[in-house]
Amino acid sequence: MSRETLETRLRQIGKERYHDRHPFHHKLHSGQCTADQVRAWVINRWAYQAAIPMKDAAFMSRCTDPDIRREWRSRIEDHDGGADNGGGIRRWLKLADAVGLDPDYVASGQGVLPATQFAVDAYVHYVREKPLLQAVASSLTELFAPKIHEQRIEGLLAHYDFANSDSLSYFRKRLTEAPKDVAFGLNWVLDHADTPEKEDMACAALIFKTNVLWAQLDALWVAYVEPGRIPPDAWTPGDGMK
Amino acid sequence: MSRETLETRLRQIGKERYHDRHPFHHKLHSGQCTADQVRAWVINRWAYQAAIPMKDAAFMSRCTDPDIRREWRSRIEDHDGGADNGGGIRRWLKLADAVGLDPDYVASGQGVLPATQFAVDAYVHYVREKPLLQAVASSLTELFAPKIHEQRIEGLLAHYDFANSDSLSYFRKRLTEAPKDVAFGLNWVLDHADTPEKEDMACAALIFKTNVLWAQLDALWVAYVEPGRIPPDAWTPGDGMK
Repeated sequence: MSRETLETRLRQIGKERYHDRHPFHHKLHSGQCTADQVRAWVINRWAYQAAIPMKDAAFMSRCTDPDIRREWRSRIEDHDGGADNGGGIRRWLKLADAVGLDPDYVASGQGVLPATQFAVDAYVHYVREKPLLQAVASSLTELFAPKIHEQRIEGLLAHYDFANSDSLSYFRKRLTEAPKDVAFGLNWVLDHADTPEKEDMACAALIFKTNVLWAQLDALWVAYVEPGRIPPDAWTPGDGMK
Repeated sequence: MSRETLETRLRQIGKERYHDRHPFHHKLHSGQCTADQVRAWVINRWAYQAAIPMKDAAFMSRCTDPDIRREWRSRIEDHDGGADNGGGIRRWLKLADAVGLDPDYVASGQGVLPATQFAVDAYVHYVREKPLLQAVASSLTELFAPKIHEQRIEGLLAHYDFANSDSLSYFRKRLTEAPKDVAFGLNWVLDHADTPEKEDMACAALIFKTNVLWAQLDALWVAYVEPGRIPPDAWTPGDGMK
């Protein structure tokens, strides 16, 4: 199989399984979410954002090649940023603030759905434990991220009062960060998946990752959309407001 | 127990157990090592240097606090550096080159003594698995590093032809890097070891780390000093020369 064929397979996984297809995103981007549903999304997605630098550090802790570590390091820098201005994580808290939540409450991780946290933790563990090829391939959902970020920026700006260039700065910034990261990751996977077995492994890793993202939105749906059955200790509307 | 008492205990551990007391270092710094003993040291200590950024990434992968991650990130930057100039790891390879070794051979990790690699791996696993307090405390051998680096620079310059400001740049750079890192680590440990049990844990972690360093020099001694019994597949004088 050629590099092109594997890339086509990977992109097909995105077409079929990326969370831009999830009904929660359709609802969110088309202005159909209530303010509390948006808040629930912001709170839960925080758990994912906050774990990304830990996931990337877990990857680097297994990388014996300084060249790869150097390449990967910028991901942590993008998310954590400097002490003064912060990075992607702090930009996410601007969104929290804009939707009326107390950023400190969101940053505490309180109220996150257990199923969300399990999915996020599964991702960190996967990257820490699986073969490096799969650790890298699991990051390739970023191939599909710019499209959903563009849709999100457009949809939120059109439909919600809280949306402006400041509150949405996280997504705007990812439009340039994600393609840079994924160019390296994709190339590395295409270089290293040089047997049919490894190609299948790379695809399985990407499928795993799409499941991590999808499961988070399913958890959000059952808790806050329908039937709207909020598990014990999970965020309840009214909590954590600024 | 006060912060001062714990700091005194930690410093006492260094006085009793840090590898500046190991006979191999006395031999090295006083000009009594043969060229091949110096090479064996350079090759084996490479395994330790090369693992340090992985150890630091393992720590970051467990850190939920962006502030701590931001602080810790500079350690990886110090060791890996940028693609053009590299960092501490590449400076170590200058030393390898200066003692007549092929830097690519050294960087391959071939010829490293199994006991060295076990000690290094034990350190990475410790930082990945133990309570955060112990992961941080295990880095506090840096309290004692500037002194040994100064002794080393002085001793090597005085006794060996390969020693000059370029080949010893790794050690020179650590004179400013280590105190910056350890100031944060020590303060964090003193803040967080707030029960007698935790104070004991912090001390145990530092003792563990001094053992990691000591074991590497013992392995070097038995293989290359006395009796000089080189294990199968470990570096043999003449191998890996440039």
